[in-house]
Amino acid sequence: MDIDTSRLRYIPGTYLDRYSTRWDELDNASEEVAAAVEHLTELQELLWADNRYAVLAIFQGMDASGKDGTIKRVTSGVNPAGFQVFSFRQPSPEETDHNFLWRYWRAMPERGRIGIFNRSYYEEVMVVRVHPEIIEQRPLPHEHIDEAFWTHRLEDIAAMERHLWRNGTLIVKFFLHLSKAEQKERLIARLSNHEKLWKFDPNDIDERSHWDAHQSAFQEAMTHTDHDHAPWFVIPADDKWTMRALVAQVLTEQIGKLPLAYPQASQIDDDWVEEALNRLRSEAE
Amino acid sequence: MDIDTSRLRYIPGTYLDRYSTRWDELDNASEEVAAAVEHLTELQELLWADNRYAVLAIFQGMDASGKDGTIKRVTSGVNPAGFQVFSFRQPSPEETDHNFLWRYWRAMPERGRIGIFNRSYYEEVMVVRVHPEIIEQRPLPHEHIDEAFWTHRLEDIAAMERHLWRNGTLIVKFFLHLSKAEQKERLIARLSNHEKLWKFDPNDIDERSHWDAHQSAFQEAMTHTDHDHAPWFVIPADDKWTMRALVAQVLTEQIGKLPLAYPQASQIDDDWVEEALNRLRSEAE
Repeated sequence: MDIDTSRLRYIPGTYLDRYSTRWDELDNASEEVAAAVEHLTELQELLWADNRYAVLAIFQGMDASGKDGTIKRVTSGVNPAGFQVFSFRQPSPEETDHNFLWRYWRAMPERGRIGIFNRSYYEEVMVVRVHPEIIEQRPLPHEHIDEAFWTHRLEDIAAMERHLWRNGTLIVKFFLHLSKAEQKERLIARLSNHEKLWKFDPNDIDERSHWDAHQSAFQEAMTHTDHDHAPWFVIPADDKWTMRALVAQVLTEQIGKLPLAYPQASQIDDDWVEEALNRLRSEAE
Repeated sequence: MDIDTSRLRYIPGTYLDRYSTRWDELDNASEEVAAAVEHLTELQELLWADNRYAVLAIFQGMDASGKDGTIKRVTSGVNPAGFQVFSFRQPSPEETDHNFLWRYWRAMPERGRIGIFNRSYYEEVMVVRVHPEIIEQRPLPHEHIDEAFWTHRLEDIAAMERHLWRNGTLIVKFFLHLSKAEQKERLIARLSNHEKLWKFDPNDIDERSHWDAHQSAFQEAMTHTDHDHAPWFVIPADDKWTMRALVAQVLTEQIGKLPLAYPQASQIDDDWVEEALNRLRSEAE
């Protein structure tokens, strides 16, 4: 694919509305996706064989921005043994009885694997920042939820991601950037389709009135946590297939930067192979 | 107990041999332990009822320094539902396939509980620092194990402990400080007692030749990770009962500093209690 994905990289401090929710240049997006996924499949086998690195791909975005469909498409055809997809819903009491990163810690991918988080620990500085009453109901030791509370959370996330990278986990973060107008169309479509009604959360409509607060929370979180070992990409999400092609392309490029190599089978040289073939052939039938 | 435990707090940068492995002032150490454990039992109930804080107590020390016995004595009589004791042995392949903190992350105590780590993530900057060949056998992405490798590990540990404290986990760290001469006596005693032979690791004798390297690794780890929210205490360990009394005392004092309170049962005032009693009494037999 001949796409300059560097334009998608988030530049810390930039207002989100400086990024377009559309990307007009792409023809044959679905073929581009197929090609990128094929490349991803090869890289995943190399990642598995190398077994020193892991990859964590994080998907964030407003409701109906297409997280589920993108993850489904990008992982289809790839060896499921090398992928671990986690969707994070309402935390359980056991989870809120731990530090806020605990439930995500447990789900971190092993070496050789690609872990995918459909929503992630970024929810803990995004949605709850717009609705601090959710946090206030949790059994936290804090007297007040003030600015420092959020700064500390962002600092803790950045420190965890740095630790993960130092230990071999590359983190690639996608913000699926949807326009408010396109979200409206998608919600209307969902409400008009009985088979999609189950996905409908009545709160999704109310949340539209907090649109700017959400964008601002995303922006601040991305600003404090963008690093080369854990970059944020803002993916135009108004067109689903273009979005998928861009995600597949970025993910492939990022994994491709890892110094992956097939391990050298030190014992298995040409002589050894010949000897082994001879032994097998000379076995009594 | 009338002990000034502030003398036990490690002062970053201090050579360990400036701390005594003996503490001469204590009479009736076993009675002191019993009294402190009784106090600890009360605090643990309060911690449980309050349910905003957790406590993580970490025990490190050379072989035969008495970690097992101290943990056993300090937790005996206390409600086991409020305690979680973890001993960390050789990591499994699943564990080495994650970042080095992962196996410890999973074991973090819940709010209202006291988690006890018999050895801990500090092993990852102590024993393996003396024997880097252990690390070199792991599937890490690092080309070389250099000074920066250890500095980063200590930095990651400090960041994790800060995160835990911000989320309500107090960390209390004990270095059981044994003299080389006393260790020799204890190893001889173990070798002379068939019932204790199972605890004997032949490497323990070889390790004595690395004594200074171990002390130096402990010292550097403590220097980089001592904070008021995660203090290190150097406990004289040549006398077992004195050591246990000091540990119980320090742990009790540290937990006692938390602003714990029984929750207010908002609905249950005197009128409500009277009403409830009336309803119970007036039930048809």
